[in-house]
Amino acid sequence: MDPIEPVACARITLAYDGSEFHGWQVQPGLRTVQGTLLEALERLIELDGIPPGAGRTDAGVHARGQVCSVPLAQADWLARVQQALPSMMPDDIAIRSIVEAPADFHARHSARGRHYSYRLLPLKDPFRRHDHWQFGWQLDRARMQRALMPLIGDHDCTSFCVATSLEADRTRCVIRETSIELDGDALVFRISADRFLHSMVRIIVGTLVEIGRGRLDETAFAGILAARDRRAAGPTAPPQGLCLDAVDYES
Amino acid sequence: MDPIEPVACARITLAYDGSEFHGWQVQPGLRTVQGTLLEALERLIELDGIPPGAGRTDAGVHARGQVCSVPLAQADWLARVQQALPSMMPDDIAIRSIVEAPADFHARHSARGRHYSYRLLPLKDPFRRHDHWQFGWQLDRARMQRALMPLIGDHDCTSFCVATSLEADRTRCVIRETSIELDGDALVFRISADRFLHSMVRIIVGTLVEIGRGRLDETAFAGILAARDRRAAGPTAPPQGLCLDAVDYES
Repeated sequence: MDPIEPVACARITLAYDGSEFHGWQVQPGLRTVQGTLLEALERLIELDGIPPGAGRTDAGVHARGQVCSVPLAQADWLARVQQALPSMMPDDIAIRSIVEAPADFHARHSARGRHYSYRLLPLKDPFRRHDHWQFGWQLDRARMQRALMPLIGDHDCTSFCVATSLEADRTRCVIRETSIELDGDALVFRISADRFLHSMVRIIVGTLVEIGRGRLDETAFAGILAARDRRAAGPTAPPQGLCLDAVDYES
Repeated sequence: MDPIEPVACARITLAYDGSEFHGWQVQPGLRTVQGTLLEALERLIELDGIPPGAGRTDAGVHARGQVCSVPLAQADWLARVQQALPSMMPDDIAIRSIVEAPADFHARHSARGRHYSYRLLPLKDPFRRHDHWQFGWQLDRARMQRALMPLIGDHDCTSFCVATSLEADRTRCVIRETSIELDGDALVFRISADRFLHSMVRIIVGTLVEIGRGRLDETAFAGILAARDRRAAGPTAPPQGLCLDAVDYES
């Protein structure tokens, strides 16, 4: 097949429950979100490679606003995808929108910011076990809120990245916003940054919970960032509480 | 083992996500809620038979307030069950309370009323697929509300029961309350009665949805009740929307 010269791009926004996927990224023989999309798209149009996503969510991690880009060699392919794709998805993926984007739009490279949330439940609820981290500890929310302050800004985030996936020159992230709020009986942590390293949100949450339980000092994050060492941070929180909520692009 | 002469009874209230259970009732070789409870209780105390539940929920049906009774031959067994049972449950069962009841308390026979809810979602949401019936139809809620009126009262409910499980002299139910309300973008149907026949709520909901879609007349329920024939009613709604919310006992 000749390489496709795209005339436009489809920008697909989707939500999924990650519980029964081996993550976003295509893996041979495993059920992944990207693989499921790819299979459906191949039945509709010609593809030039695997459509990228804005965030490579791990197994068990969810999305309410993942974005995927699909270059289109023919202008009328957009309508075809808009019409057919939503009903081709399984129960655990919902297509939220499919809109036209410029031919050079790329879900990952064009992204300017990502918004993640992480849900914590300090009690057991069978109905929320797939999208909350449930435990029996009491957490001090005010203490956690204060502890978040040093995270805002442009940092080398090596301490919040699983060592094996580090690229030495790509460890800086600009963290723009963090918050921790009550939603009923759940605690919701939110974080926005230009980009995230592998497992970054889960390591920050694992550390934050140690602070909320009183096992780490509430000023701990400054020292952890300065250490530039994964071992300085707390444990990695489990995947099921994490959700990619939205991705920002230049209008 | 000699039959146990109970000195008291443990009344256990529990919630469960029924998605991964083959229903409430013990079945050899299958994962059921009652079987899971039974196995744990057998490690704690001596049992005289299988502890009954107030409602025999089917596969995929949930509970927020199922009640189970466990006769106790020794007064100090209550504390043992209270202390140990909650942490012995898997992620999809949560023990909500364990309190002492009279020796002759029986979760099913002593029950005076049951409250069920059924959740409908007229759009697709991956995060609510386990506890909502999701479809693409528009429903007329005011019409559904009016249609419910004839259900209140003491009726022969043969038309709302799967034929195979009918006992000829046990088809009367006193329906005390029904409602259909919006909860965000979901529709929640609630129904309370002294007792329910097999699949009764799901057949009522299946019929109600036909009325809400305009496929059945809004006065349909009176004729369906009078027919005393399962074939007069609409289809059986799927299990995942249904939940046993609470059970009433005399103080």
